[in-house]
Amino acid sequence: MPFPSRRAALRALLRAEHSDLDALLLTDLVNIRYLTGFTGSQAALLLHVDGDEASSFGTDGRYRTQAGQQVGGLPILVERASARALVEQAGIRGLRAVGFESDTVTVDAHVGLQQAAPDLTLVRAPGQAQRLRTVKDDTELAALGAACGAGDAALADLLAAGGLRPGRTEREVADDLEARMRAHGASGPAFATIVAAGPHSALPHHRPTDTPLRRGDLVTMDFGALVDGYHSDMTRTVVLGPAAGWQRELYALVEAAQAAGREALVAGARAADVDAAARAVVDAAGRGAEFVHPLGHGVGLQIHEAPLLAAGTETALAAGMVITVEPGVYLEGRGGVRIEDTLLVRAGAPRALTGSTRELLEVG
Amino acid sequence: MPFPSRRAALRALLRAEHSDLDALLLTDLVNIRYLTGFTGSQAALLLHVDGDEASSFGTDGRYRTQAGQQVGGLPILVERASARALVEQAGIRGLRAVGFESDTVTVDAHVGLQQAAPDLTLVRAPGQAQRLRTVKDDTELAALGAACGAGDAALADLLAAGGLRPGRTEREVADDLEARMRAHGASGPAFATIVAAGPHSALPHHRPTDTPLRRGDLVTMDFGALVDGYHSDMTRTVVLGPAAGWQRELYALVEAAQAAGREALVAGARAADVDAAARAVVDAAGRGAEFVHPLGHGVGLQIHEAPLLAAGTETALAAGMVITVEPGVYLEGRGGVRIEDTLLVRAGAPRALTGSTRELLEVG
Repeated sequence: MPFPSRRAALRALLRAEHSDLDALLLTDLVNIRYLTGFTGSQAALLLHVDGDEASSFGTDGRYRTQAGQQVGGLPILVERASARALVEQAGIRGLRAVGFESDTVTVDAHVGLQQAAPDLTLVRAPGQAQRLRTVKDDTELAALGAACGAGDAALADLLAAGGLRPGRTEREVADDLEARMRAHGASGPAFATIVAAGPHSALPHHRPTDTPLRRGDLVTMDFGALVDGYHSDMTRTVVLGPAAGWQRELYALVEAAQAAGREALVAGARAADVDAAARAVVDAAGRGAEFVHPLGHGVGLQIHEAPLLAAGTETALAAGMVITVEPGVYLEGRGGVRIEDTLLVRAGAPRALTGSTRELLEVG
Repeated sequence: MPFPSRRAALRALLRAEHSDLDALLLTDLVNIRYLTGFTGSQAALLLHVDGDEASSFGTDGRYRTQAGQQVGGLPILVERASARALVEQAGIRGLRAVGFESDTVTVDAHVGLQQAAPDLTLVRAPGQAQRLRTVKDDTELAALGAACGAGDAALADLLAAGGLRPGRTEREVADDLEARMRAHGASGPAFATIVAAGPHSALPHHRPTDTPLRRGDLVTMDFGALVDGYHSDMTRTVVLGPAAGWQRELYALVEAAQAAGREALVAGARAADVDAAARAVVDAAGRGAEFVHPLGHGVGLQIHEAPLLAAGTETALAAGMVITVEPGVYLEGRGGVRIEDTLLVRAGAPRALTGSTRELLEVG
């Protein structure tokens, strides 16, 4: 059970960063899942700095049984408005200062919490559990590895079955990939699968349509699997048939940018510098304006987590972070290329959790 | 295009309820989709009370092309932090008071917005678009009807194919239902399909496991389809083989509670009274403590929308609302029954958009 040690780590972080706080109120469900294992849709956790015995887990009546099964080592309070109930209890118990997740708690919810315990000082304490979550433990790496493996296997199966061919629609290919990920152990897709063919591949977040694939199309597939709540994320761009010169050139550029990004992805590097390393390759080719999104993002219990690989992110990378590297260049009206892997940060070169070839595939 | 008329309706609501405001800043993506048709993952809309020309839609560079295709009739601003950029622009243009969605804007985001326009008065204005969204227009009813139809067809196909039989696992049945909904036009499931067999049926939000179905089990299936962004929601509980006396009795109780709820679901009724009508039936049988959740909820672009059918909801129902009625009684360790339909509120009896039989099915 990794949960008690995650809670202990969060307490250590709080003591170091927020020594004024008696407790932290967690209301973000992903953070709560990370800290307790609870997978229901309504819960709150008051994590007292003194330990689990002084802490409380709250959920509503729908989840009484499930909380009893999933949440070990914490007193459980069953109340409809569990966050307010925990704060009210904290006030009654005489706690003075409680942090709250001001990056996810709404303005209205904050007003409600303060009303529940007027004498309690509520302190903005955003992103504490998210900081811990950036570095994955062994339980998490196992799930991430399985999720990435399901994505790789699905793509390999799709290609082996001739599933990428002129006449099939983007939607059919997307459904096919999702079904094959399930067949390889995914509980579902990690996000809505992107399949973008021809000019659509120039839209970074295109949603699959009934447009049929055509010979000569660039086809971008951005997809991932969900395993035990953990997400994988991979993009591959292929050509249906022999690649034209401009497609080959565009692919080589993005491949070089991705290699530069992977090379820069080492423990100790600044996140912004990794982004800059890949972007410099695209800029040098005069295509900087067509690489319109950040280089990558952390991935775990959420498909998008800290750190973001982008200009302005000062975060220093640490061993154990799992981060995507996904440069793309998009030529409006013609097509685009994106290549993405999910990578484990280490002291040296990162380990790719996604293992599909990055060579340009000319399919069929 | 229903979007301009939805924006006009929101302006009329603002003039009536918030006459102090020059504009409303919308940051909730579902509300933005409702008002503009935009389906990307990052956007903001400053809806000026004077009209579309004085309003602005903001998104980031990833969605430049998509916004141009989807968003008609509004000036478009492309900026990374689009909500802040719109508020900053509002400050420069001399607007005095701008409402914001305090029910979804976080405490930290609010601080950032205020920093972007220090002289602007930001006013809490929660739930404005959500209020409009409770009453569905024809475009929405068409999508909801198609989504409910896909769910009905999937269940009929599953039963016809003998897909509910001892030995199949909960997960297999859930995957099967989801694939059949896709085959009937769904872009995906409306939410993670629940299949709960035997004692698991006593857990209202059980997630499917590898537990095989057994003869004599109650099997609860709670599932829905997603069509054009609209959700359907239906629950049916069946017995594998002949029903035992206690199962038949439990089913009849829930069926009677659901009928009472449907009968009470008329335009003009208080939402709380509809909940009470169904709950009275369960209470009278001495099972009130085992009906542990609200009776139902609105459904549309989100699976859970206003109004909630629960004690304390004062909302008066209106013709055109689409609401679930889903009583359930759960006997821990033995099993539970839930019966749910998605219903269109009218002056008289509601119209069921979900059409599967509510009779107790003894399967196989």
